[in-house]
Amino acid sequence: MSIEFCIDATSGDARAGRLITPHGVVQTPVFMPVGTLASVKGVPQQTLEELGVEILLSNTYHLYLRPGVEQVRAMGGLHRFMSWPRAILTDSGGYQVFSLSELRKVNEEGVSFRSHLDGSSHFFTPESAMAAQIGLGADIMMAFDECTEHPADRQRARDSMELTLRWADRSKKYFEEHKREVPWAQSLIEAGQTTVEEAATQALFGIVQGGMELDLRRESAERTVEIGFPGYAIGGLSVGEPRTLTQDVVAATVPHLPADQPRYLMGVGTPEEIVRYARMGIDMMDCVLPTRAARHGLLFTSEGKISIKNAAYAADDGPLDPVCHCQVCSRYSRAYLRHLYASHEVLAMVLNTIHNLTHYLDTMRAVRHSIKLGE
Amino acid sequence: MSIEFCIDATSGDARAGRLITPHGVVQTPVFMPVGTLASVKGVPQQTLEELGVEILLSNTYHLYLRPGVEQVRAMGGLHRFMSWPRAILTDSGGYQVFSLSELRKVNEEGVSFRSHLDGSSHFFTPESAMAAQIGLGADIMMAFDECTEHPADRQRARDSMELTLRWADRSKKYFEEHKREVPWAQSLIEAGQTTVEEAATQALFGIVQGGMELDLRRESAERTVEIGFPGYAIGGLSVGEPRTLTQDVVAATVPHLPADQPRYLMGVGTPEEIVRYARMGIDMMDCVLPTRAARHGLLFTSEGKISIKNAAYAADDGPLDPVCHCQVCSRYSRAYLRHLYASHEVLAMVLNTIHNLTHYLDTMRAVRHSIKLGE
Repeated sequence: MSIEFCIDATSGDARAGRLITPHGVVQTPVFMPVGTLASVKGVPQQTLEELGVEILLSNTYHLYLRPGVEQVRAMGGLHRFMSWPRAILTDSGGYQVFSLSELRKVNEEGVSFRSHLDGSSHFFTPESAMAAQIGLGADIMMAFDECTEHPADRQRARDSMELTLRWADRSKKYFEEHKREVPWAQSLIEAGQTTVEEAATQALFGIVQGGMELDLRRESAERTVEIGFPGYAIGGLSVGEPRTLTQDVVAATVPHLPADQPRYLMGVGTPEEIVRYARMGIDMMDCVLPTRAARHGLLFTSEGKISIKNAAYAADDGPLDPVCHCQVCSRYSRAYLRHLYASHEVLAMVLNTIHNLTHYLDTMRAVRHSIKLGE
Repeated sequence: MSIEFCIDATSGDARAGRLITPHGVVQTPVFMPVGTLASVKGVPQQTLEELGVEILLSNTYHLYLRPGVEQVRAMGGLHRFMSWPRAILTDSGGYQVFSLSELRKVNEEGVSFRSHLDGSSHFFTPESAMAAQIGLGADIMMAFDECTEHPADRQRARDSMELTLRWADRSKKYFEEHKREVPWAQSLIEAGQTTVEEAATQALFGIVQGGMELDLRRESAERTVEIGFPGYAIGGLSVGEPRTLTQDVVAATVPHLPADQPRYLMGVGTPEEIVRYARMGIDMMDCVLPTRAARHGLLFTSEGKISIKNAAYAADDGPLDPVCHCQVCSRYSRAYLRHLYASHEVLAMVLNTIHNLTHYLDTMRAVRHSIKLGE
């Protein structure tokens, strides 16, 4: 067994369910906080647990560069390395290579690129990206894809989609042959707690590409489903296109993904957007927005977005968000948060991140509740 | 009432006691973590409470510059501003002006200096430093002193000591006339919960100076005691002198301070030093060392000091300190802490600080326990 997905309630296109992973149950629709380098910046794992985080996303590209996959594997995989007993998803590295690395060159075999850290040369193939993700040992890993740039002409979008499909095939093949090598299964087998046959494995999700061409998205979805994965992601969005176009692409893709399998929309979005996409039938989302914005003093509240650096808050004795029950809103004033931010205090990043994550997680809790009530 | 000090046990020169402040009881000997800008860098107040911190130190000079005393006073004082219900001590600003500011000029009236933040001009007098500390509203505030530089010749040390004595007199006079203005007393009076006569006030401590001249230290102690304060600090140490000299000065000063009043040694020290000074009869200490060192990856353990950036820890699966029960040592490996530090993750500062503070607080717990056992 790798994962199971159960849909408990639907309302329109939206579904509320449970994703059962080797490291616990994830209630969906879910927003996954981003812990790029095996840490949600500034927030201790204990606090993440208290916030009710059930699944984290970590970035293969970053962890591959630092501390290195072998390092993490030797420590028993990501869960043990970062002391996070709940579920983890790793991305394929494709998007990060696309957005962060330098001198990127794509050919049939894979992508050569230079590290954004030290300029060193690297080469990712579907096989090496799978090997890296197996070494990291997340519960869910992603097929290696090419994230098509925007804008891209139709031929380019098709070529890129075809490449991603061939890479999906290679990803699955490598994964099936090597999935027993995941570090936590190995240690359970060695401890006699399970057998090679019965040990849980990771789950590999496919990724739909196709640029902004709605018919290519449909084709990509259908052909990725043909290869066959336990879950499907919609990639190649949030790459600079208008938000309405993102929505159109999602709307054109969702109907061609299996209704009984999890659907993951990568890299979105604002609090309003994650609600909208959940309503459209998306089950999983991730975004750096709540955590990155927090570090820049941008805070999401029930009354809208607040820039805490604003001098107007210097004498504001009230809580950041009067209806939020997080440890930040229940304890500190806007004046204090403004002071911390203006003084470049580390605690500003910590508290702001805790609040923004709470806002996102509460938003998703409300969405799940609404779906169950049939609203 | 401002503070009460009860000695519960002695062992040699060491004493274990309780300092009862308007914001709770502080068990002594105590190490006070430094929260310069109304925050112990990176650590939420809730965590400080869980660590058992009973008193924090905050810096008047820094808070005066940012966010400003009036801002804090308007928010009800430091306790309410930073949401810290337990005791707080503020320094006088004298040491910070001495060590941080530019173009400092001292005359009989006070000190003119330029802000280290923006170069703006300011003037501190004993009266304005008292007004600032009353506005901040810490439980314990410090007389305004001149921190004599090291080295200083005998005449310079005497002149500086005499100035500090005159300023101590002026500090006490201003404090006695204005101590009812502390923001938390005012709000209690307005709420009808106490009367002007019965409201708790802050406690003002005197500071002994005298450079490294042992007879001047004695004279400074005796004449400061003559002025009369509910507690006494030994200032002007840890200014670059050899550690053995610091110890000699403390040894020469302590016998001339009242046995039944708290003794506060400012700005020390290492874990070994805080034990040594507690043994010499010191009741209160503060130092940026555990928190600042943490941010530079220097960690105090039962096995000595560790530089977590060391590559040797990259594959070290063990806890930072096997006998430490803090949330960091119980959850994370040295390998993970090394990774966080090497990757410049904010969480490195948070976790390292929590561990170092635990080490210091546990050290003082052990000291108090030993004194009570008569060891």
